[in-house]
Amino acid sequence: MSRHRRKLSKKVEMAPGTGTIEGEPNSAPVKITVIDYDASRYEEKQINLVGECFPYRDTSTVTWINIDGLNDTRTIDEIGQCYSIHPLILKDLQNTGQRPKMQDLESYLYLTIKMMTIDEKTQEISIEHVSMILGSTYLISFQENIGDVFDPVRERIRREGRIRKFGTDYLVYALIDDIVDNYFLVMEKLEERVEDLEEELVVNATPESLSKLNKLKKDMIHLRKAVWPLREMISALDREDSPLIQAETRIYFRDVYDHIIQVIDTLETFRDMVSGMIDIYLSSLSYRMNEIMKVLTLIATIFIPLTFVAGVYGMNFDYMPELRHPYGYFMVWGVMIGVVVVMLVYFRKRQWI
Amino acid sequence: MSRHRRKLSKKVEMAPGTGTIEGEPNSAPVKITVIDYDASRYEEKQINLVGECFPYRDTSTVTWINIDGLNDTRTIDEIGQCYSIHPLILKDLQNTGQRPKMQDLESYLYLTIKMMTIDEKTQEISIEHVSMILGSTYLISFQENIGDVFDPVRERIRREGRIRKFGTDYLVYALIDDIVDNYFLVMEKLEERVEDLEEELVVNATPESLSKLNKLKKDMIHLRKAVWPLREMISALDREDSPLIQAETRIYFRDVYDHIIQVIDTLETFRDMVSGMIDIYLSSLSYRMNEIMKVLTLIATIFIPLTFVAGVYGMNFDYMPELRHPYGYFMVWGVMIGVVVVMLVYFRKRQWI
Amino acid sequence: MSRHRRKLSKKVEMAPGTGTIEGEPNSAPVKITVIDYDASRYEEKQINLVGECFPYRDTSTVTWINIDGLNDTRTIDEIGQCYSIHPLILKDLQNTGQRPKMQDLESYLYLTIKMMTIDEKTQEISIEHVSMILGSTYLISFQENIGDVFDPVRERIRREGRIRKFGTDYLVYALIDDIVDNYFLVMEKLEERVEDLEEELVVNATPESLSKLNKLKKDMIHLRKAVWPLREMISALDREDSPLIQAETRIYFRDVYDHIIQVIDTLETFRDMVSGMIDIYLSSLSYRMNEIMKVLTLIATIFIPLTFVAGVYGMNFDYMPELRHPYGYFMVWGVMIGVVVVMLVYFRKRQWI
Amino acid sequence: MSRHRRKLSKKVEMAPGTGTIEGEPNSAPVKITVIDYDASRYEEKQINLVGECFPYRDTSTVTWINIDGLNDTRTIDEIGQCYSIHPLILKDLQNTGQRPKMQDLESYLYLTIKMMTIDEKTQEISIEHVSMILGSTYLISFQENIGDVFDPVRERIRREGRIRKFGTDYLVYALIDDIVDNYFLVMEKLEERVEDLEEELVVNATPESLSKLNKLKKDMIHLRKAVWPLREMISALDREDSPLIQAETRIYFRDVYDHIIQVIDTLETFRDMVSGMIDIYLSSLSYRMNEIMKVLTLIATIFIPLTFVAGVYGMNFDYMPELRHPYGYFMVWGVMIGVVVVMLVYFRKRQWI
Amino acid sequence: MSRHRRKLSKKVEMAPGTGTIEGEPNSAPVKITVIDYDASRYEEKQINLVGECFPYRDTSTVTWINIDGLNDTRTIDEIGQCYSIHPLILKDLQNTGQRPKMQDLESYLYLTIKMMTIDEKTQEISIEHVSMILGSTYLISFQENIGDVFDPVRERIRREGRIRKFGTDYLVYALIDDIVDNYFLVMEKLEERVEDLEEELVVNATPESLSKLNKLKKDMIHLRKAVWPLREMISALDREDSPLIQAETRIYFRDVYDHIIQVIDTLETFRDMVSGMIDIYLSSLSYRMNEIMKVLTLIATIFIPLTFVAGVYGMNFDYMPELRHPYGYFMVWGVMIGVVVVMLVYFRKRQWI
Repeated sequence: MSRHRRKLSKKVEMAPGTGTIEGEPNSAPVKITVIDYDASRYEEKQINLVGECFPYRDTSTVTWINIDGLNDTRTIDEIGQCYSIHPLILKDLQNTGQRPKMQDLESYLYLTIKMMTIDEKTQEISIEHVSMILGSTYLISFQENIGDVFDPVRERIRREGRIRKFGTDYLVYALIDDIVDNYFLVMEKLEERVEDLEEELVVNATPESLSKLNKLKKDMIHLRKAVWPLREMISALDREDSPLIQAETRIYFRDVYDHIIQVIDTLETFRDMVSGMIDIYLSSLSYRMNEIMKVLTLIATIFIPLTFVAGVYGMNFDYMPELRHPYGYFMVWGVMIGVVVVMLVYFRKRQWI
Repeated sequence: MSRHRRKLSKKVEMAPGTGTIEGEPNSAPVKITVIDYDASRYEEKQINLVGECFPYRDTSTVTWINIDGLNDTRTIDEIGQCYSIHPLILKDLQNTGQRPKMQDLESYLYLTIKMMTIDEKTQEISIEHVSMILGSTYLISFQENIGDVFDPVRERIRREGRIRKFGTDYLVYALIDDIVDNYFLVMEKLEERVEDLEEELVVNATPESLSKLNKLKKDMIHLRKAVWPLREMISALDREDSPLIQAETRIYFRDVYDHIIQVIDTLETFRDMVSGMIDIYLSSLSYRMNEIMKVLTLIATIFIPLTFVAGVYGMNFDYMPELRHPYGYFMVWGVMIGVVVVMLVYFRKRQWI
Repeated sequence: MSRHRRKLSKKVEMAPGTGTIEGEPNSAPVKITVIDYDASRYEEKQINLVGECFPYRDTSTVTWINIDGLNDTRTIDEIGQCYSIHPLILKDLQNTGQRPKMQDLESYLYLTIKMMTIDEKTQEISIEHVSMILGSTYLISFQENIGDVFDPVRERIRREGRIRKFGTDYLVYALIDDIVDNYFLVMEKLEERVEDLEEELVVNATPESLSKLNKLKKDMIHLRKAVWPLREMISALDREDSPLIQAETRIYFRDVYDHIIQVIDTLETFRDMVSGMIDIYLSSLSYRMNEIMKVLTLIATIFIPLTFVAGVYGMNFDYMPELRHPYGYFMVWGVMIGVVVVMLVYFRKRQWI
Repeated sequence: MSRHRRKLSKKVEMAPGTGTIEGEPNSAPVKITVIDYDASRYEEKQINLVGECFPYRDTSTVTWINIDGLNDTRTIDEIGQCYSIHPLILKDLQNTGQRPKMQDLESYLYLTIKMMTIDEKTQEISIEHVSMILGSTYLISFQENIGDVFDPVRERIRREGRIRKFGTDYLVYALIDDIVDNYFLVMEKLEERVEDLEEELVVNATPESLSKLNKLKKDMIHLRKAVWPLREMISALDREDSPLIQAETRIYFRDVYDHIIQVIDTLETFRDMVSGMIDIYLSSLSYRMNEIMKVLTLIATIFIPLTFVAGVYGMNFDYMPELRHPYGYFMVWGVMIGVVVVMLVYFRKRQWI
Repeated sequence: MSRHRRKLSKKVEMAPGTGTIEGEPNSAPVKITVIDYDASRYEEKQINLVGECFPYRDTSTVTWINIDGLNDTRTIDEIGQCYSIHPLILKDLQNTGQRPKMQDLESYLYLTIKMMTIDEKTQEISIEHVSMILGSTYLISFQENIGDVFDPVRERIRREGRIRKFGTDYLVYALIDDIVDNYFLVMEKLEERVEDLEEELVVNATPESLSKLNKLKKDMIHLRKAVWPLREMISALDREDSPLIQAETRIYFRDVYDHIIQVIDTLETFRDMVSGMIDIYLSSLSYRMNEIMKVLTLIATIFIPLTFVAGVYGMNFDYMPELRHPYGYFMVWGVMIGVVVVMLVYFRKRQWI
């Protein structure tokens, strides 16, 4: 949780206009890749100096500039100047604590979205903040770290797919669709964890189960925070009458919207399942306690009276007529066996054994 | 739950425009039946090649094409081309994870709805995704599997009922009404399960009851997801000013709407009943624990002091005056009986016995 | 609960246009009474043939036709034809599972409402479905069973009260007001049950209390379902610009509306009270368990060590110096009394005794 | 609670137009006081006959008629006739079960509000229903009982304060402000009770705590019912474009509105605090149970094995070699002390002692 | 909590127009500082007499008058007269129980906001009420106590930062931004407390943990009350078409709005985490109880039967054949060891050991 904590405290003690990086500090250098294409041509290169991507600005081809790493404020400022981005937006780009949102700044749209990936081994869900600046002929995406879920889109651009015939609005749709598709993968893993935990709680609950449950709840809170605002954002993109979004692309955003609703529905289903789990744990503990107490009670209630009987005839009084009786010992055994039988019948009647 | 899981993961790693089958894989071949009728004539046949149903397209009679099985993308694409269905809708047809919705595409309406059936033997509720394309003279319905709840409608068409005098809008109403009528059957079975479980939890709760409760909760979550959006969809059908829905049919949709409200009310009632059941289970366990502990406490508190008394006179001290007393033994019995009586009176006073 | 179950399942397997009786089957014949009045005259009779009430149709006097029993579809159809009621409304009349609602069909209004009565002896709340057709000069009311809460209204009509000067809209107000007044009676009985149960749960909770609590919750769910939609219905009656509701009657409907709000407020108050009762039961059980365990612990922790001491000196070793000591026995008693005193002081300090 | 019950049942079995007194029956006679003032003069008197207050009707001075006691229907009717109040309002005046509301009847406004006072000794909160008829030159207030919170207002009128320069709208503001100020007093006492109870539940919870908690919850439910609707009512008074409320008075109503929001905020805070208290009680009981069980377990697990050892050497077998051993007795003590030490180490390791 | 209590009760028994100090009584004298600046010049001084700040009123420079301490009604009244503040606002200034709000009084805006600071040592969160009067060339801020979070703003004014080029609207933005930045610091400390407590509850819960949990919940309730209304207030500032807020400043308020949303999201996340903690505590107690009971049950069920066996052969009957048997003693040991083994196998099977 240290990551979150840092994000919170970093913000403080700075003058309002100063750019702050609120995400994970990332000492790796910024990596910039440019993909430039239209229906007929395609170019892809990795650049080192921001200036190298400026020539693409005034062409009519679609230019997708992807920037991995947010900690190099100078690079971001240079791009901001080149594409005339408002300083507050440049500052916002580095604030990874933001919720998904869409802001229309007339000559461009500013979008933020959470990218989710799941580590196959540790099952850890990692949420990465992605910002996009959508202009009429360019799309600039900013990511916290190297590595993303956009390879299918890159492949389709290379393969000269349908995507090459559309503009930047379809490109932004394709990227968002990729991100949302990965949400389904995360949901799937989450479902496994929910169901495994549910079974564990009924069958063999331990305090570790409780820790798992807490972890699960927290993960779900973070996912909700990442997914819910997306719904509003996509719906705003669809309604928005910006000339940057073509009429024929809108139906695709509506499709993404439906997928997000499906993700939200699934999340809410999990939430409903998880919300009562602590009660399952409690009742599971109670049930086991009952079983333990039944055993104790059975043994104790059978043997305590017998021990008393034995104790009586272990007394050393000078005059105890039973002790002298030739069949005394056997009669006592008879009494004791009788007591046991009565007890057992009673317990059977109460369905304890 | 493997079905749901597969549905989630299948979606991923595919380019946005590609058709994906998200339902249960169904190796059985697609089965196509055509029913064509107007007030005077009626024809029903099962066809093998999609092309066979094309002649019905341009007639003024009502043509109902029913397709069982969604895994044959080619068949769906051919029908799509014949009736000029938008590619995104064709892709959506195969996405069985969608919630019920209605989309107006001007020359036709696209409807999705969940069909519920209950297995008489296993009491398993199965939810099947049904999509419908409603045109002015045709209705194309897509189902995941063979077998549906539409036989009453088919029977009425054959019998030359009122339905033969109406258009496709009444046909779609009749199908939806059939589906909603089956919801009542499912609600009825659900009610039995809710009430049986409630009794079981009070009378004889075991961990299996907990599993049943979880199962019940999950079933109810899925039913809610299937039924709630229907309300909005039917209400949209009623409000919609599409020329495909005749004014005189609207009153029937309003009737279906009232039935859906009734189903939702019933579901919410069950939810209210189920929501507190885990607490009933817990208190039932606590009550039984109390009963067990009372028995243990009774036996232990009566016999432990007596055993102590017996132990005292089992000591081997050379000088213990009581042991020599001729009535010592009987006096000890007197003391012990006295202790028991005092204990019993105390327990009676506390209402434990 | 069998009644509800039947209501649910009956609906199924019938063609959409067929009339279905969803209420309790009622083998008693339908009973029809007609009350016809205006400011100057008054007539009341019970009729056997539906045709007998047709002459009243075209008069300008207020005609109130009351029909007890919904299972005679023929009678309902005849009345429907006489007063030109839409077939779907006639079918709806027999569906007693409907929620309260108001439908404006231009020449008449269709109202449904739930009538509640409480059995003085068994405290059972019975909810009966009442439908009304309100025309300009007639009011037709349909009830499931003989017996209703409308006697005060009949009495006022006979006594030539204010009601005789108004039209059918005031009559329908008077009937609804009577029904709502009876809700207050039901609320009163419910309050008694809520408070009795609350006390029982604190003082002497048993599993039967749990059953009572469940019963109470279910009753409240059903009452809510009956009362909540009424609010919307009356408010619709007030807003409705139908010529069937006179301006001067509207203020009376607003008054009924306020009463319904009062009933709903009361119901919500009860719900708040009941919602935490299961926790009261649980803590009541926990408290009693604590008391039981305290007694067990007191007795066991005092006597188990003493019994051990006695056991030590009951051993038969050849050489045990204490046994030979002339005051050994008394010294042991001293030790044992000392142990008891220490224990008691400790328990007193922990406030267990 | 008998008061509430009576209020509910009284309503029933009466013809809709009949006036009903739903409050506490109050055998004390009605008490009427008139205060008449303008900026220059002031008159205050108690009258016996309603007629005595009629002369003030047509003057331009502000006339405040206060009526304590609602059970004298004749008095109310006379006032109603004098000031032309609608009969339904007159009936409503006596219905003390109403929620706070404002009704605009053009020539006058009808207001109802709940006055709260707290008994210093018993800490009982009593809620009294107050109705007001606000005309252009008169304000008639109706209270259930003698005694109110309006003395500061009376004092200010007598002292020739700012209030004397304003009209009836400022007077009604002053009265409502007085009532709302008293809500703060009640909140303060409530807070004490909430905090005392919270401490009691953690430190020394008994079933009486549970009863207190229930009482507290019920009080809060009643306060909520009294305060929440007030918010809407005052906001309606502010928005209302009735000529009875001057523009310059509106800012005062907005001030009262802010105070009500503050009261509601406080109430909601208490509600949040109280809502989890039953869980605190439960966990407090559980914790104490744990402590009790630890003591029992310590004593029992230490002494039961020792008692067994002592029992073994209390057996009377002819051949038991240890018994003959000269150091047998001491060796047994050694074993027993060893067992105790092992046990204590184990318990220490588990942090039980 | 005495502070809150006083705040509530002070309000009562005062005529509506009278100024009341509802905050902490502060015997320290009022401290007034004036900062006056424009792009070219800057002046800062602390004054003793209110009159000293009047000369700044009619200049076109930005004048920020900061007043620490609210208990000197005369000072406040003088300032009110100088700047023509409405008397009700002056009274409101001293009511520290208000929620954050914005009121537009045409020639000036009245803002209230809660300033939060956290004591590094005690971790106590203190909430201070700040009011601001925003005119076209002046900003008057009122604080309860000396000491605030505005030093960064003062520093920027001194350093001739961007702030010097803007008007009072940017100044008020800078102050609010400072306050909101401090919320993040408080959130960070709160997160530590939430997580520490969560761990404590699972690992080593004691009744003190319960007290901490209560404290945490209360703190969160107070924070919510302070932060939630801020959202609405800032959004009102942005929407407000007052000439006091320049168009170019609005984007900054939108930025602050986003930060507040982030704080609210974080608070809600904590709330979700804390809401189930009492259940974690309960299940943690239950689990420990299970562990304790297992130990007791193990020891008791093993040794109680053995003690009985030993007791049997401690009886003093004249005729007990086993006692005479040369291997009797060893056979008994054999039986006892057998019993232990059976028991251990049984417990192992039930997974208790």
